[in-house]
Amino acid sequence: MYVDLGSALGATPGVSRDSLERLDEQVATAHERIQAGRRNSQHGYAALNLPETVDLDAIRGAVAPFEDPAAVLTVGIGGSALGAATLADALAGPADPDAYFLDNVDPEHVSRLLASLPLDRTVVNVVSRSGTTAETLANFLVVREAMADAGVDWTERTFVTTGESGNLCDLAEQHDLPSLPVPDGVPGRFSALSTVGLAVAAIQGHDLDALRAGAAAAADGLSGSLFETPAYAYGATAYALTGRGALTNAMMPYAERLETFAEWFAQLWAESLGKDGLGQTPARALGATDQHSQLQLYRAGPRDKLVTLVRPRDRPDFGIPATELDGLSYLGGSSLGELLDAEFEATEASLVESGVPAIRVEIDAVDERSLGSLLYEMEAACVLYGELASVSTFTQPAVEWGKRAARGLLGGGDFEEADAVDERTSLVVE
Amino acid sequence: MYVDLGSALGATPGVSRDSLERLDEQVATAHERIQAGRRNSQHGYAALNLPETVDLDAIRGAVAPFEDPAAVLTVGIGGSALGAATLADALAGPADPDAYFLDNVDPEHVSRLLASLPLDRTVVNVVSRSGTTAETLANFLVVREAMADAGVDWTERTFVTTGESGNLCDLAEQHDLPSLPVPDGVPGRFSALSTVGLAVAAIQGHDLDALRAGAAAAADGLSGSLFETPAYAYGATAYALTGRGALTNAMMPYAERLETFAEWFAQLWAESLGKDGLGQTPARALGATDQHSQLQLYRAGPRDKLVTLVRPRDRPDFGIPATELDGLSYLGGSSLGELLDAEFEATEASLVESGVPAIRVEIDAVDERSLGSLLYEMEAACVLYGELASVSTFTQPAVEWGKRAARGLLGGGDFEEADAVDERTSLVVE
Repeated sequence: MYVDLGSALGATPGVSRDSLERLDEQVATAHERIQAGRRNSQHGYAALNLPETVDLDAIRGAVAPFEDPAAVLTVGIGGSALGAATLADALAGPADPDAYFLDNVDPEHVSRLLASLPLDRTVVNVVSRSGTTAETLANFLVVREAMADAGVDWTERTFVTTGESGNLCDLAEQHDLPSLPVPDGVPGRFSALSTVGLAVAAIQGHDLDALRAGAAAAADGLSGSLFETPAYAYGATAYALTGRGALTNAMMPYAERLETFAEWFAQLWAESLGKDGLGQTPARALGATDQHSQLQLYRAGPRDKLVTLVRPRDRPDFGIPATELDGLSYLGGSSLGELLDAEFEATEASLVESGVPAIRVEIDAVDERSLGSLLYEMEAACVLYGELASVSTFTQPAVEWGKRAARGLLGGGDFEEADAVDERTSLVVE
Repeated sequence: MYVDLGSALGATPGVSRDSLERLDEQVATAHERIQAGRRNSQHGYAALNLPETVDLDAIRGAVAPFEDPAAVLTVGIGGSALGAATLADALAGPADPDAYFLDNVDPEHVSRLLASLPLDRTVVNVVSRSGTTAETLANFLVVREAMADAGVDWTERTFVTTGESGNLCDLAEQHDLPSLPVPDGVPGRFSALSTVGLAVAAIQGHDLDALRAGAAAAADGLSGSLFETPAYAYGATAYALTGRGALTNAMMPYAERLETFAEWFAQLWAESLGKDGLGQTPARALGATDQHSQLQLYRAGPRDKLVTLVRPRDRPDFGIPATELDGLSYLGGSSLGELLDAEFEATEASLVESGVPAIRVEIDAVDERSLGSLLYEMEAACVLYGELASVSTFTQPAVEWGKRAARGLLGGGDFEEADAVDERTSLVVE
């Protein structure tokens, strides 16, 4: 990816070139820690070795038994779904099997989706490292029953992606299901470039080698200076701006295909860095649409924002037909892509003019190689930010409390967290 | 809607019951201004009169000529699309015509969507008050040509929703197209309950009378006290919390059907209140999915957040099949809806336990009446917040700058804003 920091210099909050140069000494130290973590395959850092360690043949082998599927349904939540969804939404062509994701337990949504799928031509991919994630396992039980009701042998249409032991592991053994390992030391939100993120891409026929090559090139490009490494330029500048008051990071791709990428980024950023009272809140946006929704606030609201503008340098395009309509003849000589680029540049200039910091992130095109590179580099940016902030990037302790409370409420054990639900104060206005 | 402020009391930032009582005096004054604005149909305040002023028969009449459509395609951006999309995503049943929205100018997305639609059975709804919105008119030109290329007479399949003069008005006259007026004094983001938001609902066969009745009941319920008016309870508490540091408002519905509602709310809140350095940044989230993405940050990150948890009190549900799987038998006696509710309550308790303010918003069900009420009350909440903050709720001056720059860049006139694009500083890392 290409990172342009120009519109973050001198903004409010902003960083100066001098500040970045001073920060670069910390970047060098952090880079050494990251490289040491990678050499020792330490928890989390191991994610940055995936371009070397991921076994593409195992992925291809696991999905090979499913010939000519019409759809692939991933049953997983959070990091077990978002990486695969990001790649599917970015890369899928009209002739590819459709990719669906059951990443919520809304009963109506689940039943409608299942009713609309051709279950006898659908591949089901159940993803949970532990094999006990309540939402995922509940949905899997529902999917399994729906297949049985439709007269489909679910054991012929299912594969699992899971840890070395647990329910899903046992199930795979019992029914001889294809299975893929969730890699050790790779938290879910860092697993897009592993078995977890790539199996759906394999079923859709995307070029896994190009995805890996893009990520590998980014890995090779990591150096000890933010001025030489786009990932570190992004991570270090976002870190510096957060410290100066940019507690929100509006992630705004100018490409419909990258809308899910913004969601993936939001998980990566929030769950990795939101700790100890620190972190930066990701706000997902989409250009040009959100110029008509969020831009007023970005430009004239509180000075607590960084806006990240993302676009491909090349994209399929076509011309806008000529028109006789009053005052619109200028559109006729142009194309939709040119209009979108003009909106991108106008938004960026509009932020600069009002002193709001923006970072421009560009990729060559929305294709496998660029996506591999983009996801890897945003992960590296996040790891660097975590090092600079001295937080525990690879854990998510605050999520566990709610899980225990929910389980207690459902009668799945005696958890004191569930009692807290009854203790809350009410002040109802109706 | 039902608003429970209990989990915002005593949080950090938080409000006390005493503070709310003091604030209630300002609410009374603000309510008087709002009622005066409504009586005089002043710009913006007129939106709160829509339950009385909207002409449902005109809407039904405009869409009546289109018999048995397979799809309805709205060409509009921002407030010209989001209200209709919110209702379509909340209410659409499997037998209704599909609703699509061209609210961006991504060339690939536009061409794929048009290639996938049965154009001879698609109704096109072009929405722009001025008739000159660049994105909307460019897309309309493309749609019109695609229809011509497919041998479809676009004049038989199109209606327009627009102001009293301009391109779309002329076009409607010239080709005898059905047309609906954009109501005077109603900014786009407040137009969900007008012709702009309700035409698609009419085509999909939803109950417009129930939508209006829900909104009318909410309008009748507005009183001079936040303790008696759910809309004001929400707006006043959000305002108080923003002043105490909650610069971000995470809008988190626990229903897939309300995901677009969160987007609609984000526009309403950002564009109305993001002014003079004030405002609150909406962050769109979705329960339970985002518990596995954003909750870590909400619970353990910076104390700059309010979390708004929204759910229907009643929803279609079904049981989770019994299972032999290890440690999961507790799920078998439950239902997906109960699991989702347990997650909702666990998340709320988890925020309370860590001192993060949350407001619970409930509606009876995801149906026409409740939606009419919810949209009206969130609009009233926003207007009240704007009164308390003394901002110009109904304008969006910061959006205009970028529009002029984009137009200048495309050769649509001489605008000095376009020059600023060339003046920006670059610091590229690649």
